[in-house]
Amino acid sequence: MTQPVILALTAGEPAGIGPELCLQLALKKRGPGIVVVASKPLLEARARLLGLEVALEDWAPGAPATAEPGRLSVLSVDGLASTTAGHLDPANSAYVLETLRIAAQGCLDGIFDGMVTAPVHKGVINNAGIAFSGHTEFLQELCGVERVVMMLATDELRVALVTTHLPLKDVSAAITAERLTQVTRILDNDLRKFFGLQHPRILVAGLNPHAGEGGHLGREEIDVIEPTLATLRREGIDLTGPLPADTLFTPHWLDNADAVLAMYHDQGLPVLKFQGFGRAVNITLGLPIVRTSVDHGTALDLAGTGKADAGSLETAIRVGERMATSAKRDPIE
Amino acid sequence: MTQPVILALTAGEPAGIGPELCLQLALKKRGPGIVVVASKPLLEARARLLGLEVALEDWAPGAPATAEPGRLSVLSVDGLASTTAGHLDPANSAYVLETLRIAAQGCLDGIFDGMVTAPVHKGVINNAGIAFSGHTEFLQELCGVERVVMMLATDELRVALVTTHLPLKDVSAAITAERLTQVTRILDNDLRKFFGLQHPRILVAGLNPHAGEGGHLGREEIDVIEPTLATLRREGIDLTGPLPADTLFTPHWLDNADAVLAMYHDQGLPVLKFQGFGRAVNITLGLPIVRTSVDHGTALDLAGTGKADAGSLETAIRVGERMATSAKRDPIE
Repeated sequence: MTQPVILALTAGEPAGIGPELCLQLALKKRGPGIVVVASKPLLEARARLLGLEVALEDWAPGAPATAEPGRLSVLSVDGLASTTAGHLDPANSAYVLETLRIAAQGCLDGIFDGMVTAPVHKGVINNAGIAFSGHTEFLQELCGVERVVMMLATDELRVALVTTHLPLKDVSAAITAERLTQVTRILDNDLRKFFGLQHPRILVAGLNPHAGEGGHLGREEIDVIEPTLATLRREGIDLTGPLPADTLFTPHWLDNADAVLAMYHDQGLPVLKFQGFGRAVNITLGLPIVRTSVDHGTALDLAGTGKADAGSLETAIRVGERMATSAKRDPIE
Repeated sequence: MTQPVILALTAGEPAGIGPELCLQLALKKRGPGIVVVASKPLLEARARLLGLEVALEDWAPGAPATAEPGRLSVLSVDGLASTTAGHLDPANSAYVLETLRIAAQGCLDGIFDGMVTAPVHKGVINNAGIAFSGHTEFLQELCGVERVVMMLATDELRVALVTTHLPLKDVSAAITAERLTQVTRILDNDLRKFFGLQHPRILVAGLNPHAGEGGHLGREEIDVIEPTLATLRREGIDLTGPLPADTLFTPHWLDNADAVLAMYHDQGLPVLKFQGFGRAVNITLGLPIVRTSVDHGTALDLAGTGKADAGSLETAIRVGERMATSAKRDPIE
């Protein structure tokens, strides 16, 4: 029998809703063992503020992590400067990044089976004079990989992106054979490794409206996308497309597919978030570790009110557990 | 009491599913009077092929149009060369355009209250040596207007587009203050005129991911979109945005809006067609007439089989009737 899954959960920005989402989670029945990687005094302060009865138990590597309602395993991280809900403090930034580093290193060292991240606040970290463009890039660098892939998923739909946070006018030039090849291989590989799919079926959107309509509405499909997909099919990857994005997201196609590969952010994510609002999880593929995240921000205006909804975090944990279990069962490197 | 609404229905490409959708419609109870503008021998031949019992009644301007199941008013158009389902014939192209011209001119002359179009086949019309890039452009020219707006709608969602059939790399340059101003004014005006909305509330998407994230992901929002929206708000148009497209299509925003204005085709239409597949209607705004259309193509492979689904055509007629009724009740020019 394999060991039960243990996931590291970083509580994210101390002024945001992350800490209280961790506490809300601790009150419920949950699947995997969770170790919250955060300042224990922060969690204690937020629990007092909200009147939540949660027993915070110090955790050490090798010990089991509790999944019992009302109890929470904590790997406390030092260095927190202030704990006021709703008020950003640049002096907390080094602490925030240290929680990420500890969780990720623990995954690399096999102490954790995966990590789930509550939201951080990019702006305040940059205001502290630390270059930081997001969890994804931080983990990419820490793990030393050349390319990662952003995928959002609900229980019904998975959408991965070839390009992510680029101005729209720069998207066409970024759709190169090299990038499309790397992203597609990662997507195919990680659907096998983390989602237990023996033969992932991937729908690929075109770049242009109507997938270019035979070249009348753009030539990237003919010049780049189609030849690249043909090469990747010869490697055994099951690819359908390039398809017009406005007909791709219909039952005729989706009912026989495991994931959609969209060429850019606003081609794929509006549908995903419309379909699964509040239940979407952000997954980083291409890392040697499992990493999932909520799909929302720090919600400073809600922090400390107890009104934040833990739905997305619960989904992120559920998906993280499934991915970690699949990777343990059938390790492919 | 006002006269009942009469809609012209063009049967579109003779080899496609348009003629049989008209006949299927004739078998059902329907709201407005419908006059099919098409070759009567074509309709007779398709009815025989499919064993449909429909009484085709010659219609003349000024007469009422039947809405009785089993009967269909027809304004027959000459010039058809062949009637074989599934086989395109360039010799039919002049006939197809003549049906559009008659229906549109009838709307302009007040003989019809609006027109609904079954699909045509652009390729075969071009193969006949006739320049034709779609219903929308044809009607724009026939009606002599500078700008029209494409809007797709279901019962729950309306999405209008600032740009339509452009290669993605050309979209940014096409988002000018002039175009955005024209499109937004048309959208606002026609939501009032055709949809009975006294104070239309319009959500506007940004061009870039996260609506540019304060300039970090593109500057079009700051340089063009925001100043243009500010000017339009001073004219009394109710505009919210620019909003990130991936959060715009969620209940928080949609529950308090009448329409979404997307900057380009694949930003807005994937969500619309996901939400309302098979029940979406394509509406041309900015014309002096009511025009709705199915959201599907000629489906040559289904023509003559009786398997085509009239759902989209029924929606197009229902929306066309509502628009025509609204325009008659409260004419604003």
